[in-house]
Parts: sequence; C-alpha cells; structure tokens
Amino acid sequence: MKKSVAKRIRRSQVAKIGAAPGTLVHVGEVMTKTPVVSLIEYSVDSLEERTVAADTLSKYSQPAGKKLWLNVHGLQDVQLIADIGQRFKLHPLVLEDILNTDQRPKVDSYGDYLYIVARCFHCDKTNNTFGSEQISLILGKDFVLTFQERPTGSFEPVRERLRHGRVHIREAGSDYLAYALLDVIVDRYFIALEQIGDDCEALEEILLSKPTTGLLHEIHRLKRESMLLRHSVWPLREVLNTLIRNDQNFFEIGTLLFMRDVYDHTVHFIESLEAIRDMLAGMLDIYLSSISNRVNMEVRALTVVAMLFMPATLVAGIFGMNFHEMPLLADKDGFWWTIGTMASIAIVMGLIFWRREWLSRQ
Amino acid sequence: MKKSVAKRIRRSQVAKIGAAPGTLVHVGEVMTKTPVVSLIEYSVDSLEERTVAADTLSKYSQPAGKKLWLNVHGLQDVQLIADIGQRFKLHPLVLEDILNTDQRPKVDSYGDYLYIVARCFHCDKTNNTFGSEQISLILGKDFVLTFQERPTGSFEPVRERLRHGRVHIREAGSDYLAYALLDVIVDRYFIALEQIGDDCEALEEILLSKPTTGLLHEIHRLKRESMLLRHSVWPLREVLNTLIRNDQNFFEIGTLLFMRDVYDHTVHFIESLEAIRDMLAGMLDIYLSSISNRVNMEVRALTVVAMLFMPATLVAGIFGMNFHEMPLLADKDGFWWTIGTMASIAIVMGLIFWRREWLSRQ
Amino acid sequence: MKKSVAKRIRRSQVAKIGAAPGTLVHVGEVMTKTPVVSLIEYSVDSLEERTVAADTLSKYSQPAGKKLWLNVHGLQDVQLIADIGQRFKLHPLVLEDILNTDQRPKVDSYGDYLYIVARCFHCDKTNNTFGSEQISLILGKDFVLTFQERPTGSFEPVRERLRHGRVHIREAGSDYLAYALLDVIVDRYFIALEQIGDDCEALEEILLSKPTTGLLHEIHRLKRESMLLRHSVWPLREVLNTLIRNDQNFFEIGTLLFMRDVYDHTVHFIESLEAIRDMLAGMLDIYLSSISNRVNMEVRALTVVAMLFMPATLVAGIFGMNFHEMPLLADKDGFWWTIGTMASIAIVMGLIFWRREWLSRQ
Amino acid sequence: MKKSVAKRIRRSQVAKIGAAPGTLVHVGEVMTKTPVVSLIEYSVDSLEERTVAADTLSKYSQPAGKKLWLNVHGLQDVQLIADIGQRFKLHPLVLEDILNTDQRPKVDSYGDYLYIVARCFHCDKTNNTFGSEQISLILGKDFVLTFQERPTGSFEPVRERLRHGRVHIREAGSDYLAYALLDVIVDRYFIALEQIGDDCEALEEILLSKPTTGLLHEIHRLKRESMLLRHSVWPLREVLNTLIRNDQNFFEIGTLLFMRDVYDHTVHFIESLEAIRDMLAGMLDIYLSSISNRVNMEVRALTVVAMLFMPATLVAGIFGMNFHEMPLLADKDGFWWTIGTMASIAIVMGLIFWRREWLSRQ
Amino acid sequence: MKKSVAKRIRRSQVAKIGAAPGTLVHVGEVMTKTPVVSLIEYSVDSLEERTVAADTLSKYSQPAGKKLWLNVHGLQDVQLIADIGQRFKLHPLVLEDILNTDQRPKVDSYGDYLYIVARCFHCDKTNNTFGSEQISLILGKDFVLTFQERPTGSFEPVRERLRHGRVHIREAGSDYLAYALLDVIVDRYFIALEQIGDDCEALEEILLSKPTTGLLHEIHRLKRESMLLRHSVWPLREVLNTLIRNDQNFFEIGTLLFMRDVYDHTVHFIESLEAIRDMLAGMLDIYLSSISNRVNMEVRALTVVAMLFMPATLVAGIFGMNFHEMPLLADKDGFWWTIGTMASIAIVMGLIFWRREWLSRQ
Repeated sequence: MKKSVAKRIRRSQVAKIGAAPGTLVHVGEVMTKTPVVSLIEYSVDSLEERTVAADTLSKYSQPAGKKLWLNVHGLQDVQLIADIGQRFKLHPLVLEDILNTDQRPKVDSYGDYLYIVARCFHCDKTNNTFGSEQISLILGKDFVLTFQERPTGSFEPVRERLRHGRVHIREAGSDYLAYALLDVIVDRYFIALEQIGDDCEALEEILLSKPTTGLLHEIHRLKRESMLLRHSVWPLREVLNTLIRNDQNFFEIGTLLFMRDVYDHTVHFIESLEAIRDMLAGMLDIYLSSISNRVNMEVRALTVVAMLFMPATLVAGIFGMNFHEMPLLADKDGFWWTIGTMASIAIVMGLIFWRREWLSRQ
Repeated sequence: MKKSVAKRIRRSQVAKIGAAPGTLVHVGEVMTKTPVVSLIEYSVDSLEERTVAADTLSKYSQPAGKKLWLNVHGLQDVQLIADIGQRFKLHPLVLEDILNTDQRPKVDSYGDYLYIVARCFHCDKTNNTFGSEQISLILGKDFVLTFQERPTGSFEPVRERLRHGRVHIREAGSDYLAYALLDVIVDRYFIALEQIGDDCEALEEILLSKPTTGLLHEIHRLKRESMLLRHSVWPLREVLNTLIRNDQNFFEIGTLLFMRDVYDHTVHFIESLEAIRDMLAGMLDIYLSSISNRVNMEVRALTVVAMLFMPATLVAGIFGMNFHEMPLLADKDGFWWTIGTMASIAIVMGLIFWRREWLSRQ
Repeated sequence: MKKSVAKRIRRSQVAKIGAAPGTLVHVGEVMTKTPVVSLIEYSVDSLEERTVAADTLSKYSQPAGKKLWLNVHGLQDVQLIADIGQRFKLHPLVLEDILNTDQRPKVDSYGDYLYIVARCFHCDKTNNTFGSEQISLILGKDFVLTFQERPTGSFEPVRERLRHGRVHIREAGSDYLAYALLDVIVDRYFIALEQIGDDCEALEEILLSKPTTGLLHEIHRLKRESMLLRHSVWPLREVLNTLIRNDQNFFEIGTLLFMRDVYDHTVHFIESLEAIRDMLAGMLDIYLSSISNRVNMEVRALTVVAMLFMPATLVAGIFGMNFHEMPLLADKDGFWWTIGTMASIAIVMGLIFWRREWLSRQ
Repeated sequence: MKKSVAKRIRRSQVAKIGAAPGTLVHVGEVMTKTPVVSLIEYSVDSLEERTVAADTLSKYSQPAGKKLWLNVHGLQDVQLIADIGQRFKLHPLVLEDILNTDQRPKVDSYGDYLYIVARCFHCDKTNNTFGSEQISLILGKDFVLTFQERPTGSFEPVRERLRHGRVHIREAGSDYLAYALLDVIVDRYFIALEQIGDDCEALEEILLSKPTTGLLHEIHRLKRESMLLRHSVWPLREVLNTLIRNDQNFFEIGTLLFMRDVYDHTVHFIESLEAIRDMLAGMLDIYLSSISNRVNMEVRALTVVAMLFMPATLVAGIFGMNFHEMPLLADKDGFWWTIGTMASIAIVMGLIFWRREWLSRQ
Repeated sequence: MKKSVAKRIRRSQVAKIGAAPGTLVHVGEVMTKTPVVSLIEYSVDSLEERTVAADTLSKYSQPAGKKLWLNVHGLQDVQLIADIGQRFKLHPLVLEDILNTDQRPKVDSYGDYLYIVARCFHCDKTNNTFGSEQISLILGKDFVLTFQERPTGSFEPVRERLRHGRVHIREAGSDYLAYALLDVIVDRYFIALEQIGDDCEALEEILLSKPTTGLLHEIHRLKRESMLLRHSVWPLREVLNTLIRNDQNFFEIGTLLFMRDVYDHTVHFIESLEAIRDMLAGMLDIYLSSISNRVNMEVRALTVVAMLFMPATLVAGIFGMNFHEMPLLADKDGFWWTIGTMASIAIVMGLIFWRREWLSRQ
C-alpha cells in the first residue's frame, strides 16, 4: 500500500510529460463507481441539501443571499470537472491540479478565489492499510467547492453542524465553512498519529523485554508511516500560515482566530510527530545494540560451556598415554578418582563462570 | 507515568474530533475533589484574600482601584469555567484551551487580554514520578486569572510576597504579577533540570567504572525526560520573546526589564539542557562501545585460556599413539617429564598472554 | 560514467586557470559531429522552421513582429558561438559560460536579457548510463536562444506544440516559450527520479528477503545518483524562485502563474528525492545490521554444532584411558552402549539448541 | 572540577527559587579572603591607582575630567556590592546578576550604562584544573566597573598599558578601556584552546600508533572541555555583535574598529574550536573502529594458532586407534616420521596464514 | 605539515596576548631570505615594472593618472610594512593583520580603502605538502597592494596580462585588477580540489576491490585536507558576497559582473567540496563495514575449517577406546575403511559449506 503511494506520486508526473499545461488527465486510481456531486445551499435560516446530476451543473445558478458548498466524490469524469471549472470560472491549472491527485499541500491565490490542496489520512488497523488522499478545496466569495476521490465520511460532522441550524457556522461566511473543513481534516491526522503512537509504545514494550529480529521491519514500517505523515503536514502548516497572514482578505477577523487555532494544532501535531520519530530512532539504537549483544553473549556462553570440557578431555588424554609407569593406573579406584576429578574441575569452573554471569545471555 | 503523558497529548485531540469549536469538554485527568477558587484583591495598602463559592462568581464585581488575582484549582467543573468566561468576557476558544490541558505553551492576544499557556514540571524522586501540567494564565488590564489542575504550591512564594505589603509587587500593575508567576514557573524547571543532571552524573560515574546492560534503559529514561522538558521550554521561550516585544503594550517598561531576565533564564535553561543531552548522547556512545568491547574481550580471554590446553592435549595424544618404538615410554620418569613439559608450555604461554594483557577484560 | 562527470566538473575549471575572463574555450566532450543550428520564427498565425548554416548567422535579421527561437546542438565550434554572441549582443562571460558546460544551474541578469543555466538528465537503463548535460537558455525581449551539447529530444514536445498553431504558446510572448522549455526540462527529472525510485524498491525487496554483500555497492550507486540529481535541482529551485520574483519584468503576470507551477514541481521533486534518500539511509542501516547479524549468527550456529561433538569426544577419551580396572570395557555390548550414549547426548543437546533457535541463521 | 562547574550552573538557580527578584544572594564559591576594591582614576596626563576600603566607597566622588576604573575581587560581601550599586545607581537586577556568578555571557542595556557578562577561562596543566569564572563589566559614560571572584591576573597587561602614559588607552574614553578588557579576556580563550589542541594532537599520535581503552576517557574529557568553551564563546560572539551594532552609542567610531577586531577573533576562535571538535569526532570514530578491530584480529590470530594444532591432534588420534593392523606402527622410525609430518603440516599452514597476514594484529 | 598549520593558527594568537593592539609582530614562519617589493605602474598605454629597495619606499610618489600595483613577498621586515603603512595611510590594525598571517578570509572597510584577506592553497604531490598561506590585498582608489609570505607564482598570469597591453585589464580601474587577482586565487583552489578528488577516486577503487586497514588513515587525511579547504573557502564566499553588494562603491558596475562570476565559482567549488566530503563519509562507512565484515568472515571460514576436523577426531577417539570387543578392529582393512570414512565426512561437509559460500571471505 505504502509503496504504491510513493510510486504514484512520481508516476503521475511522468505520465504527463510533454503534455501542454492545462491538459486535463486524471492520474489517480478510480475508487468510486460514479462521481457523486452533492450540493448544500444555506443561509442563517434555511438549508437545502441535494445531489445533482452531472449534466445539469452547467445550468446551475446560485440563489442570491445563499452560501454554497459543492462537494464532488470521484474524479474520473474529466468532463464533469471541466463543467464545474467553466461554471465557477476556474483557471485551467486548478482543474489540472484537482485531477492530479498526488499534489503536495499548497495554497494558490487566483484573485477571486483561493485554491487549497490538503491530504486526508485514513488508517485501518484491520486491513492494515495506511494512506492519504488529496482533498482540493476552493474558497470563493460565497461558495466552497471540495473535491475528493471517494467518500471518506470526514466531512460528515461539518454537514451535521450545518443541518442543526442556529450555530455559528450558518451565520458566518463561506470562509468559516472552509475553516471547519480544514479543522476536521487536521483532526483526522491525530487519529493516524495516535495509531502510530500506540504501535510505537507496544513495540517498545516488546523491545525492552524480548527483542527479536522481526522488530526491525516493524520499526522501519513505523518510520515510513511517520515520514508519510510528515511530508503531508509540514506543507500544510505553511498553507495555514499563509492563510492566517490573510494577504487577500479571504478571511474575516473572527474566523482568523479560529484558523490560528487549527495552525496551533498542526504545530502541536508536528511536535508530537517529531517526538515519535525521536522515539523510533532511539528504539532502533536499542534494537541494534540488543540484537548484536544477545548474539555476542550467546557466543560467550557457548565458549564458556566449551571451556568446561577442556580439562576433562586433557585428563582423559593424559591417562590414555602409553607410558610403562604411570601413577594411579593400577589403583583399583583410579578410574573413579579420575572421573571424580574431571567432574569436580568442571563444576568449580562452572560455578566461577556462573558467578561472573558469563552464562547468562543478558 | 511518562507514557500516559505522551498518550494524553494525542488522545485529547482525538476525543474532540468532529465537535464544534468552542464546545467545552474537560480532557485531562481529574486530580482534585472539588475545584477551589481563591481570590486576592490587592492595592498598595490593602490586600484581601478569600475563597469563593463557585455559584457566587457570576455576581462578583471587582472593587475599583484594586487589582485582582483569581486562581482556580481543579478543572472538572465545566460550568464554573463557563461562568468565569462569561464574567471576564473570555473568547470560547480560550475556555476550550483552558480545559484541554495538553496544550503546548503559547501566547494568544485577544485584544483586551493575553492568554498565556505554560507547563509546570514536578518530579518526585521517592515516587519516581515525572510530569508536567498545564497552567493557563490570563492577563487583563487589572486582573490576572490562573487555572491549574491541582494545587502544586508553586504560586505560594508569590502569594507570600503579596501578603507582606510594601514590596514592589503590591505597587506595580497586574503585568508585574503575571511576570512573578511566570518567574516561579521557570524557576521550578531548574529543579527538574537539577534532578536529571544529578541522575546523569551518577549514571556516568557507574558507566565509567562498571557498565552493566541495565544502564541502557536508564540513559533512555533520562533522554525521554529531557525531551519532555525540551518540548515544554522551547515554545515557552518563544512565548517570552513575544511578550518582551510587547506589541500590544500589556507590559510596562519597568516590568519588561524583569521579563527579559526570565527570558535569559529560559535561554540559560535550554543551553544547560542541551549540554545534558550532549552528555547523554556521549554516554550512550561510551555505553555501547563499553558493553560490546567487554563481551569481545571476554571472548578473547576465553579463547586464550582454551589455547593453554591445546599443546598439552596434543602431547597427551602423541604419547597415546601405539607405535611399537617410542621414546620415553619405557623411561621410569617419562610420565612426569611429560606432565612437566605440558605444565611448562602452558605456564610460558600464559605468561606471554598475560604480558600482552589479553587475559584482562579491559 | 558518473566518475567522469564528477571529474569534468572540476577539470573544466582547472583547464582555464590563468586565462583572461571571456576567453572562449570549449571544455566539455565533443558529442556531435557538426553543430546544428535550428531556427524557428513564429507569430500567432505563422511559423517558419529551418536549419541555418553556421556562416550565414552573422547576416541574419529577425523579421519584425515575429518571435524567434534559435537552438544550437554541439558546442565545439567556438567561432559559431562567438558569431551568435555578436549578433545578439551577448556579454563575453555569457559566451564563456555557454561553452563551459559544467556550470551549476543559475540565472544571471544582463539588463536586456536573462541568462539561465539548467541541467538536463538522461538515464538509459540498457547502457546503464546516468548523467546530465548543461542547457543554456537566453531569454530576450522577443527571442529565446538555447544551447546544448547534443540532441536529446527533450525539446521536441515544445516544438510540436508550436507547430500545431492556435495554442497559447503561439499567442504568448517569448517568456512563455522559456517557461515551456524549463517545464519539459523539469519533467524529465521525474523520469530519472522514477528510475532511481524503482531501483530503490527492487533493492529493498531483495534486502529484506536475502541480503548479500553486493547490495552495498548498489545502495552506494543509488546514493550517488540521487546526490547528482540533488546538486542539479536545488540550485534550479533557486533559479525558478528568482524568476518568479520577476524583479526585471521579463515575465508577464499570466506566465508567472505557470512558472509558479514549475516551481511547485521542483519543490515536490526535491521532497520525493529527500524521501528516497531517507529510504536509502534506512536501507543502509538495515543492510549493515543484517550482514553483521547474519555472520554472527552463522558463527553461533557453527559453535553450536561444535558443541555437539564435545561430550562424545570426552567419552571416547575416557574409555581410551589405560586404567587396569575400568567398568564396561569387558562388557560385551559396552562399545555399543557407549556409542549409543554419545549419540543420545548429541541428539538431546541438538534438540535443546534447536528449540532455542540457535541453529537458525535468522 | 568540571562536574562542579556544571552543577553550580544549575544549583545557583535552584538556591534562589521563590525569592523576590533583586534579592542579593551570593551563590558562587568564596575564593578570596576579603574582597579587594582597586580603583584607577586616569586622564591623558595623570593616573592615580589605589586600593579603597569597603566602607569609604559610599562617600567616594569621582574627580571631574577623569575616567574611572573600579575593579572588585571577591564577591562574598553583599553589602559592598549593594554600596557600589547605590553609588553608581545600578539596577537591582544588575547587582543580582553580578553576585549570581554562573550567568551566560550577555549584554543588557540600562539606558545610562551597559552591563556586560563574560567568562574568563583558566586551565592549569599541573593541577589539571580547567574552568571559567564570571567577569561582570559595567560601562558608563566615564567609568568602567569590573567584578571578579578572585584575582586571575588577566587584567594586569591593561593596567600596565594604563600606567605607561601617552598610549592611546589614556587618551581614549572609557569605551576603549572596556574594549581593552574584553580583548584580554578573548585572548585568554586562545590559551585554553591551545592546551586542548595540544592534548588533542598528542592524543591523536597515540591513537594512530597504539590505541588503548583509556583513550576513550581522554577523548571524552576533551570533548567536554571544548563544549564548556563553546558554551561560553558562542554567546560572547553575540554580545560583541550587539556591541558593534552600537545602537545606543556607547562606543566611538574609532573604538568600534577595534571592537570589530575582537569580534573577528571570536569568530576565528569558534572556527578553530569547531575544527578541534571535528577532529575529536573523527578520533572517536577511529578509536572505536581500532579497538573493535584489534580485538577481532586478536581473536582471529588466536583462532589461526588453534588451527595449527588440529591436524597434529587428529594424526595423534589416528595412531592411537587400536586396530590390529595399522601401517607404520611397527616401523622403527614410524614415530619420528609421524612427528615430522605433524610439524610439517603445522609449519606449512603457519606459512600460509602468515602470508595472508592473518597472524598480524593490524 | 598540516599539524603545524593548525598549530600556528592558534599560536599566533597566544604569542600576542597582552600586547597593545596595533603592535607589529610577525608571527608566521620566515620563508624568503629578503622581502621583495615589486611595483607596477600602468595606464592604458604604458606600463612600468620594477623592484624597489625597501628604504626608498617612504619617498615614493605615485605618478598622476597611473594605477599602481605594489606586491610584497616576505613579511619578516616589520619596518618595511610600517613604512608602506605610513606611505598609504593604512590603519595600525591592517598592518597588524598583514603580519599575523593566520587570519581567516575577511573584508574590512576603512573608508578610503578595502582590506581583503584571502588564503592561497598549494599542494605538492611529490613532497606531499598541502597547506595555505595568507594573501592580504588592499584596494584603494587607484592602487592595489598585495602581501604574501613567499613567491608562489600565482599572480604571474595577471602580470602577463598586464604586460600585453590593450586588454581590458589595462583600461579598467584598480578594482578590475583586484578582481583579476581574486580570480586567480580562486582558480588555484580548484587545483587543490582536483588533487583531493583524484586521491579520493583512487582510494575508492582500492576500497571496493581490496580494503586494507591503512585506508583509514588515508580517508582521515583527505577529510582533514578538505576541512582545511572548507575553512578557507566558506569565509571567502562571504567576502565575495560582501564585495558584490558593493555598499561603498569600490567596484564599477562592469567589474561587478565579473566579481559575480568569481562568486559563482566559489559556490560551485563549495558544492563540489561538499560532494567530495559526502563521498568520503560514504567511503568511511563502507570501509568500516568492509573491514569488520572481512574479519568476521575470516573467523567464520576458520571456524568452518575447524569443523571439518571434528568428526575425524571423534572417530579416532572412538577407535582408540579400550573395549575388549569392538567391531572392525580385527578387520584387516578396518584402518583404511576408517580413514576413508573420516576423509569422506570431511569432504562432504566441506562441499556443503563451500556451496553455502561460508568459506569465501566476501
């Protein structure tokens, strides 16, 4: 799963080499059967929510005094995107970027509207999938457009809040809706972070009690997942910073306070992530040292055991010599005395080594 | 203990996913039975100190010409915080942040007041606990509000100074009180630092004299504790730097000199902490090298001892051969000459190895 | 191949030591037989494309209202470059830099025109060649000059778009042509990146399943190739950043939007490259640990096997002693009992070691 | 010695927790019996130098047209410092910092005067002491105050230059005196640096010829000493940079040229120090690799020697077998032939291994 | 050689401790017999070149309309430097820095002239010397002064260009001459770089084919040499950057274009140097891993060979036992069967190990 993500990021660029800029090609995987266009028109005291057929979009006109939120799931229908682009007067480069679903988070200003790219993470422990998908958000004067590859349910809480009237979200402008959407995206990052953190701590416990060679791959996996998160959140932080500077007055002062809050969350997120990365680096050190030490100590224990046999073997060799005159040989209990001596030496040496803890493997 | 801190930081974020911003939920652990609201009204020549019941707060009015310090221990009573918020006209985001007790240190300006988040460290060697808790501080024109999860006693020295009139703290404005509170928070950091430093030096002494495998976990523990400190103090430094710039004139010139002093302390603290971290990194290197070398040298010593048996065993084998004509066999003292030769070779080899220091384990 | 690239970078500088600045010397390898000068004159509704003989260039005059793109393959003819320099009033340092084909990417402004140096990567898996060559681009008010050492075909897509009229490229100024050329150069970087990435992932698969010592050189090779890419793209990013700032108004506002897109691509490229470099560093760690562990474990396995022989050898020694009275010797089945005991001990020990997994090499 | 320095830095902060800012407590070690206050009044054509009793200071008045340099050795007399503070109108925080002798170098401006903290290093090879002490310098309009814990003799050269009239130092203002004092402090750093550098080079020579395990602690010691130096010089560089910017016109243009020179020296110092640290890091690598390799090669050599006995032991075993018919046994010289064969095999093997250099330990 | 360079850098500072600033002391090694002062007066159409006696310098007056280049080899004559200083009104600190020949590269502005310090590298493969010496360059309105410790011949190409009139260098001002001199200094760096690069590549080839322990010292040496280069070029880059900013108009616009070119060369140089340092770091990794692996594999091979003797030794032991009834003993070919069995087991085991590649040392 992870690999294909990394691969897609590169391949999407290669697929379009030589094409004129603005050529619309969908480069992501197709994940939904048919694109779904859902539309919410709302004002302080009313809200209408409906699904729109793709071909009626070009004739759609926004009611006066109402704010609009248009959300698209599924991007394989290039014509649909082109229609929306025409209807809302979007620049060809924006349409191209919406379809090229492996962008890094960024914000571009096109005078009348802002084009914001973010990535939404999902991680499913049962299927062991971990990945992200692009969410394009266009913030105009009284509309917000969002584009995703498949329904993730991440925007559902915002929709709920919209439906329950009389909350701030209905009164405020479309800038506040954009904030609310970015807020839930950032919130979902923390779920991914928590899972990585939990895996990390479980791993550490195993590592400190009973390190096995398999842990290396686990540590490696967590490093890659945290790296993926990092590559998404760092540019997002810049995006939010740019939005807070609010050079083009897309946001009202009141909303900016909230945006600053989301920004604080990403900073907090990055710090927690760095802490996890530090922890992983530390774990790798402990792992490498533990494994190498364990094997070394096992070799030492084996060498110690081999030592125990040496005196006995030498004694046996000595009494196997063919000298005509040797002590003990004729003695009736000579054999047993000798065996006893062999055993005693081995036991005494064993005790000495045991006290020096050279037989333990820790 | 440390783990739960790390976990809480993440979980607090996850617990609130999808909630509208400004929804008041207390996410920390409940540490006090009932919240305690203590209130100090003071001016140059008078000071009144009392505990206030939660339900009378909404009707409270600040006497003219007096400065106010209101301190709350225990944050589980969401209604109380909401009342205070209403009384002092605090922004919903501030109330939310007060209750969400895993913030990173920050300062936010809300026009009429500053909202400052700091973390206060406690470390108890007997229980071996080490952790931090959030302290929220709100600095208004003539009032200071502080919020903690439990009474730590850290503010007691400031209270003492207030009670003993005629010191600068009674004359100066509430900005000086805010400075005094930040000052004692930063001072407590040095206690934590000193304990880590002492542990560090004790560990180093052991490490240089007799390294054991258990030290790895100790080093690891100290690294994590110093990392926790670092994650609290770095943003605090930024907070203090922002306060010193004093863009919104919350501080008088005279107080700024003192704030600069606190700032110097945090810079000093960070440098000492970095020195400890360098020391820990160096200790890890020495540890890994020492352990690995010790085992290697033990294996060498064992191999050397094994070498001592080899010539004797060969000699025994030679005289155990069944040749019809062999020298010495018929000799009366042949056996003893042979044993003597075996012993001599082993002793000579032993001396050679001993002089080369191959038998030592250092 | 790589080596010679690194060497050339240095040697080119050495070759010219002491020469007056502006002395024209060609320092790259000669890769084409004769230089080819191809010339495209275009406006919205016409396009003329032709190859020009070197000696007619000095008399060439650009038709009014037409934009010009002059491309040169092969730089060994110093006179040709000097002629072009005279015709377009280029500064001697520019001519010198065009011929000195080991520059790092840069942009220099000379008042009337911009001089841009970029590097174009080619990687051929079949010949296993990987390298880059310099592309000099001069952007004037209504002309673009490009200089390469050999025809790489990288500019062909742009030429195609020019030929098919009525696209934006014919209407826009020569700044847009410069953008289009930089765009295809950056796009080609992704091909090189993809190949390195593919090699990386193939290598990782082998590494995790069956590490061999040869992998070290492969990792080393990929590290060097990614380093080469990095040394070309980092300065190019700066170049693009400088162009976007557009201090001297060489670009129209519309084109700047597209330039920003190219800039985003290089940022994206650098991040992907850093991810690959991180991956390579991680692979090196795993490799070193795997190889070292494998050998250690093999030594352990061998030691274990040696252990199995020890008790049997001791027993044989014991019954080889020459005591007059020894048990079992006279027993009819004594020999076989002894052999059986030897075998049993070895088998029991083998089972114990096997259960402890000391015989495995993982 | 070093440890106590590190400890003091932390402890000084802890000792004062909860005290009101400005409370005067001396936290360093007492190093002189009684404080000595020496006073120099000078102008172009006159100089008076005398020691002042502590209790007469409050009544001291500076002669008009004369510049003053007041130097204090020994800081245990808190009252003395308080008197000086009152006499020269110093801020309580300055007095506190003078007594708290573990500050990091800094410069604070208090309107009428600058407060500069620097550290002076002393290293005594015979006693093997290495440490630093705080020097507080206050630069006013026509006076310079300096505070040290004990007489180090570092200021003696400046005093000498003052005594020998008609040099620039007598004509220039007190800013030039401050420069001269900072200059000698920085110069003394180079003595410490040189000693570390000499130790470093001596160590390297030993390391390359005959590495022993004791070197690790030496390298560690030098690393710590260079770290101590670094922690003092980095902030001093900032201090000098601040002084050169001369925002408050404490320095005349002419003196600034000299200050820039001191600044250059600290930059140079830092670079030399970094080079030494690089060297130390490289030495640690070589050390670790050398020690580990040496032990490994010794084990190899031992294993090789063990190999030499194996064929001989086998041959002895073979001729010890009890077969009724065996060759050579009855032969008269059989024994000697066998012994000869044993020796030959061992010699041939020994030669082979010797040629492969497996017996060397390098 | 290198060591003495490092040592001199520090010692020069120590030698002057306590001296008043501006005291002229020559601290470098004396490398020429007598100082040589060569003088070139030039204008567009004339050039006069002569050597001047030291004592006539004070009476020297520059012809009007002529530019002057005065070059001094050998700095031991302090009086000579003082005379030149007086003649050209140089600040005492400049004279001091000229004589203190271990400065780091810097540029200082003294109003009427610029004082530039650079270092010139020489590396002589036959004598295996590698070092640098200081070149002081003073650029005034119509004169350039240069000071070196010995004639290196590096300025010869510039002299040649001056002699051959009618080139730009004669027409341009003295700023262009300063550029030309800095240019040849930077060019010489590339010779040093090339030699290090060549050594590096030769080393790498040996490393990959047949690593020996001696390579460690070679890698170490190259690291130190590249570090020396780095410490000279980094500050030089800053110097050139400062000159390009041209805050005080010492350079004409036309010359600035050329200066930018030199600046580009240093940037290029630094990047190539960093690439070499990366390569060296990578080589160190491969070296350490190779050496450690080689020894480990040799130990494995020895252990494998030891294994081959074990079964044979056991069999010999078994047939050496003194049981009254043992099979084969009475058999006529029993001995040979046994020997054959021993050999077969050894050969089969040998084959198995050989197929597992445990006997190879790679």
